[in-house]
Amino acid sequence: MSKLKPIPVALVGCGVVGSATARILTRDRALLEAKCRQTLELRYIVSKTYMRATEFQLDTGLFEPDIEKALGDPEVRIVIELIGGIDDARAVIERAIDAGKHVVTANKALLAVHGPELFERARNAGVAIGFEASCAGGIPIVRALYDGLIANRIDAIYAIVNGTCNYILSQMTAKGESYRQALQQAQHEGLAEADPTLDVAGIDSAHKIAIMTSLAFGQAVPFDMIPVEGIETIELADVKFAEKLGYLVKLLAIAERQSSGLTVRVRPAFISRAHPLAWVSGPFNAVSVYGHVTGHTMYYGRGAGGAPTASAVVADLISIASGVLPLTFSECRYMLGNNPVVRENPVADTAHRYYLRVMVRDSPGALASMTSILEHYGISIASVLQDEVADTNGGESTYVPVVIILHTTGERAVLEAASKINSLPTTGQRCSVITIVDEYPEPTAED
Amino acid sequence: MSKLKPIPVALVGCGVVGSATARILTRDRALLEAKCRQTLELRYIVSKTYMRATEFQLDTGLFEPDIEKALGDPEVRIVIELIGGIDDARAVIERAIDAGKHVVTANKALLAVHGPELFERARNAGVAIGFEASCAGGIPIVRALYDGLIANRIDAIYAIVNGTCNYILSQMTAKGESYRQALQQAQHEGLAEADPTLDVAGIDSAHKIAIMTSLAFGQAVPFDMIPVEGIETIELADVKFAEKLGYLVKLLAIAERQSSGLTVRVRPAFISRAHPLAWVSGPFNAVSVYGHVTGHTMYYGRGAGGAPTASAVVADLISIASGVLPLTFSECRYMLGNNPVVRENPVADTAHRYYLRVMVRDSPGALASMTSILEHYGISIASVLQDEVADTNGGESTYVPVVIILHTTGERAVLEAASKINSLPTTGQRCSVITIVDEYPEPTAED
Repeated sequence: MSKLKPIPVALVGCGVVGSATARILTRDRALLEAKCRQTLELRYIVSKTYMRATEFQLDTGLFEPDIEKALGDPEVRIVIELIGGIDDARAVIERAIDAGKHVVTANKALLAVHGPELFERARNAGVAIGFEASCAGGIPIVRALYDGLIANRIDAIYAIVNGTCNYILSQMTAKGESYRQALQQAQHEGLAEADPTLDVAGIDSAHKIAIMTSLAFGQAVPFDMIPVEGIETIELADVKFAEKLGYLVKLLAIAERQSSGLTVRVRPAFISRAHPLAWVSGPFNAVSVYGHVTGHTMYYGRGAGGAPTASAVVADLISIASGVLPLTFSECRYMLGNNPVVRENPVADTAHRYYLRVMVRDSPGALASMTSILEHYGISIASVLQDEVADTNGGESTYVPVVIILHTTGERAVLEAASKINSLPTTGQRCSVITIVDEYPEPTAED
Repeated sequence: MSKLKPIPVALVGCGVVGSATARILTRDRALLEAKCRQTLELRYIVSKTYMRATEFQLDTGLFEPDIEKALGDPEVRIVIELIGGIDDARAVIERAIDAGKHVVTANKALLAVHGPELFERARNAGVAIGFEASCAGGIPIVRALYDGLIANRIDAIYAIVNGTCNYILSQMTAKGESYRQALQQAQHEGLAEADPTLDVAGIDSAHKIAIMTSLAFGQAVPFDMIPVEGIETIELADVKFAEKLGYLVKLLAIAERQSSGLTVRVRPAFISRAHPLAWVSGPFNAVSVYGHVTGHTMYYGRGAGGAPTASAVVADLISIASGVLPLTFSECRYMLGNNPVVRENPVADTAHRYYLRVMVRDSPGALASMTSILEHYGISIASVLQDEVADTNGGESTYVPVVIILHTTGERAVLEAASKINSLPTTGQRCSVITIVDEYPEPTAED
């Protein structure tokens, strides 16, 4: 094949992902050339510091502190935004689009909130935005949703897309550590930030499910309408009861088509050991997608870190360079949020099985008061688990955990019943209410 | 977006996958139109019978017994080959290519053997061949290899790509059934053919790894140079020992870059319960891919069956219709077999850990004779497992299983030693030699 002139690229931001991207583009140039006719030239690394240049063996001559020079170079055809955050990143992307340059970004926070406008702006300018790196790092899940699974009506996505949370929950399960201990361990291993809020509060997962939902359901979900719960309130007791009952606690990001509409949420959940997502341990991520013809497919890998995320960035660069992604971008109606069929369904209107753990003063009638509340709300009990507790307090009444598994029940009723149970005089701390996520039904012959 | 004229398509073959494809193209037309600007018109279903028309609610007016009419229609732009087999299928594909029509096929046997010629022919004619459906049914693994993971040097693929074998081995593990019983059960459930040879002898898996190897390593492997072992000789005893030792027996298709070259093989193997592939049970498939930047990613789903395979066929149709696949086909250097770096490495020259099960006459010195043979070949023993067996034969000597786990050893030495052990007077039936597949090392910071 004939040699083509390499396409000049500007990288804005040289942090963990940026430096790994620069490294692939320079060190692995021959490898990429062997795979694809069109090649890339990394012309600028826009960064105020050379900090990572040595560690990643990058040519310091590529470093350019002045972003104007990079964005103003008319030969630059693709801008890679890897500075993160919202406002500055948005400004870089908008300027690149307005200058007729394609964009590649890993910025989930930005796309989850401003994705639809940015995509429209890019479409109007005739350029593409590559965002494989914004969801689940090295796992090519964005492509699976817009390309590989395109023949499917996607019915549900169940995703473990935050490695920090998954590591913490895996440690609690495997080592019997408390949330606090496991978090410290994660920070010690560089798997959690000093301020871990974005991760442990579920916000990062919500960003990713917002993007995947747009792709899968053709429906941009307003980010602040996604109910988000994190893992901070998960107690070791719940992790242990989960295990005893054949489940694992995972932070799940879920988007689900239900008869009444589309529900999107992030929350810790019990998932059966028989479900492939239960196998995903440590910092790994996985996304289960349910399509009306494929049934269940799952995508597993490293969802964060420099090299895996850079792999996704470079895949988008090559796809843009070869003309594939721009074509996909103009031909496929994704990220448009214009699907009139799907409407939002509040989580309160959904129904699931639930796990309830109530700390109950060990007194006669305590269980009866709880079950009569549940009965009042028409909630049916599948099983009750109350371990015998050694009476170490010399006859004084102590709090013991009572675990109640509920049959499929509307969430509104469960929350109201839990609130009533919390105000019983026999109830200790606020009870734990955790959704049990069952395997999404496989398509039938009629689907 | 403006309405475009639908692209006429001819479907050749209306079996399990063909009828499911026709159904998606007709029933789900509105769904596909909502996703993609370019739409498809199923104009011909070339089939001698209307057999499946009723079951799949297909318009019998689409059925055309005369293939000449479909291939001769100049408006038809894409031909879907789903008749299977080699010669007739090849003729259909060649005629379509020569008439300037794009091709979509699920024919793994054909592509594994004649892929390189067909791809060159298509490239010369300026048309594309879509073959997502040829590997692992509903799992978009072909796209992951040529697109999503393109930034990676692929170092290894470990794949479970035959649902029949995986179902049989899962049944043996879960239910303690013999190979024969589990095979009958699979046939009863429609998961195995009346003549199951292609599946259980590993040939189907070999077809798929041949195709994936071409994509991943840029190296077309001559199909008859892939050593293939099936699962017919796996005994329940081995399945049980595997479990006892923390492994599962899986039929693995493996392509692996080693310092001495590329090794491709299909064989039953012990895989650690800690490896995600061990979780894949029943008829499901999964492909683990190790890239030098992503590390381990895995793709899981239904690897066979009408609807999942049709999902892959339709994804290729849409990609061709929108111009994406033809562009990828001309810009990406895949399926060319022109990578000079990779050379073949005979399996005999590889090194692994091994499981050896020898049926030994319970006589003094039997174990010593075996260990001295292993010592002679420089093979180091990691552990020996010999269960005490109740002496039910009233003092007569009986055969007892002795399991020896070997440290990493060259395969040639292991096979020679096993052959020597087989000819010992104390050895009963031929001993079982099964490779233990360890997790492929994750990339280091230097990768």
